[in-house]
Amino acid sequence: MRWFLYLSYNGTAYHGWQMQPNGISVQEVLERSLATLLREPVPVTGAGRTDSGVHARLMVAHFDTDVELPDSFVQRMNSILPRDIAVHEVKAVVPDAHARFDATARYYEYHVHTFKNVFAEHRSVRLMHIPDFERMNKAAEVLMEYTDFTSFSKLHTDARTNNCRLLTARWEPSSEGWVFTIGADRFLRNMVRSIVGTLLEIGYGRMDADGLRRVIEACDRCKAGVSMPAHGLYLTRIDYPENIFLK
Amino acid sequence: MRWFLYLSYNGTAYHGWQMQPNGISVQEVLERSLATLLREPVPVTGAGRTDSGVHARLMVAHFDTDVELPDSFVQRMNSILPRDIAVHEVKAVVPDAHARFDATARYYEYHVHTFKNVFAEHRSVRLMHIPDFERMNKAAEVLMEYTDFTSFSKLHTDARTNNCRLLTARWEPSSEGWVFTIGADRFLRNMVRSIVGTLLEIGYGRMDADGLRRVIEACDRCKAGVSMPAHGLYLTRIDYPENIFLK
Repeated sequence: MRWFLYLSYNGTAYHGWQMQPNGISVQEVLERSLATLLREPVPVTGAGRTDSGVHARLMVAHFDTDVELPDSFVQRMNSILPRDIAVHEVKAVVPDAHARFDATARYYEYHVHTFKNVFAEHRSVRLMHIPDFERMNKAAEVLMEYTDFTSFSKLHTDARTNNCRLLTARWEPSSEGWVFTIGADRFLRNMVRSIVGTLLEIGYGRMDADGLRRVIEACDRCKAGVSMPAHGLYLTRIDYPENIFLK
Repeated sequence: MRWFLYLSYNGTAYHGWQMQPNGISVQEVLERSLATLLREPVPVTGAGRTDSGVHARLMVAHFDTDVELPDSFVQRMNSILPRDIAVHEVKAVVPDAHARFDATARYYEYHVHTFKNVFAEHRSVRLMHIPDFERMNKAAEVLMEYTDFTSFSKLHTDARTNNCRLLTARWEPSSEGWVFTIGADRFLRNMVRSIVGTLLEIGYGRMDADGLRRVIEACDRCKAGVSMPAHGLYLTRIDYPENIFLK
């Protein structure tokens, strides 16, 4: 039986989602907890990777098992998992459903604050100057006109194409500062953090909408703004077609 | 010249507001930073104490100095202060204004969440079961009928009276869980945390409104519910009469 696991994690202590030799990953801790509970090795496949320090309010991963999931599976997983990883739901899916390939949309948020905030450490990025958010929102509309985001991609990735269909891209005030929400059918490695860095160039008046067009059309990572720190970034939503879920 | 300093702090790393021999206090760090900036010893008097681990979204403290405050005093204080203490404003007041004695009202919030929340560590208290918040709000209305809160006070305090005039006491849903907001002209030591503990007894059906009346009327700390952990508690607002502020 294949299952979709819905989870969240505070990325502060992890070297990202993906298993890797340099440090502990969310995937590794999750697999270890599943193995403890189900008493068999349980590899999981995530909907995507998040980099070191990036958070997920919602990540989806699939796994297969012939073991019947115990009652209160979610509660028992949560008591095994450390405090910075939580399981919210587990859903039965069709056997060939795939957390990564079947995702039709993903959403990220980037959180910033413009005044010293003693409660935001590791959860939001402090901007030392207040950017013009309206100007950044106008520039975000320019972004929506494009599909090739090579300029915001990490060099040397193995992505077959750099085309992404943006669904939303907008800054809004939040209780603690400002949040940039961006949705797309897919994202390139490092894309959100370099888009935010580039929008901030515009918010600080160091680039204008024409400049942004030139950056995008250059298809060259070196033209874009700096990549922003990981700890402001949250994966927040992943959409799937309804028909992959079993009743 | 006397000044009111408006500040916030994340209480996680501190042994409370008040200077004390056992550990570092917010007051101590604040005085040290003021002395660094103004180049003279600057004792501060807080509007009240917060216990070890309790947070303040807003605390007020007064201090006297003959030194002229430098331009961008707030910004310079914030660069000297550690990341978990922030100064928001400094206001000139009349010479006999007193941060503690002139306060006409204080407000606290107590934050809880009922599901595992990977972003709430040190900032909200997890309840392992979901209490009946409506029932707790009805009980909070009972609280409002009383003024003697001896039953919710720490034993052996030096308070002259245990009378408090409640201004508000109410649970409301928040983005991450539930928040209990309580305002009063004054608070007794430990009062909010033991009121929350007692309301939870009611929320879990282990006490009813009549039981609450008996607890309050007993004027005995041993009758109330357990005191809740410090890290869910925030001092959020302190009111003063307008006429103590200089133009």
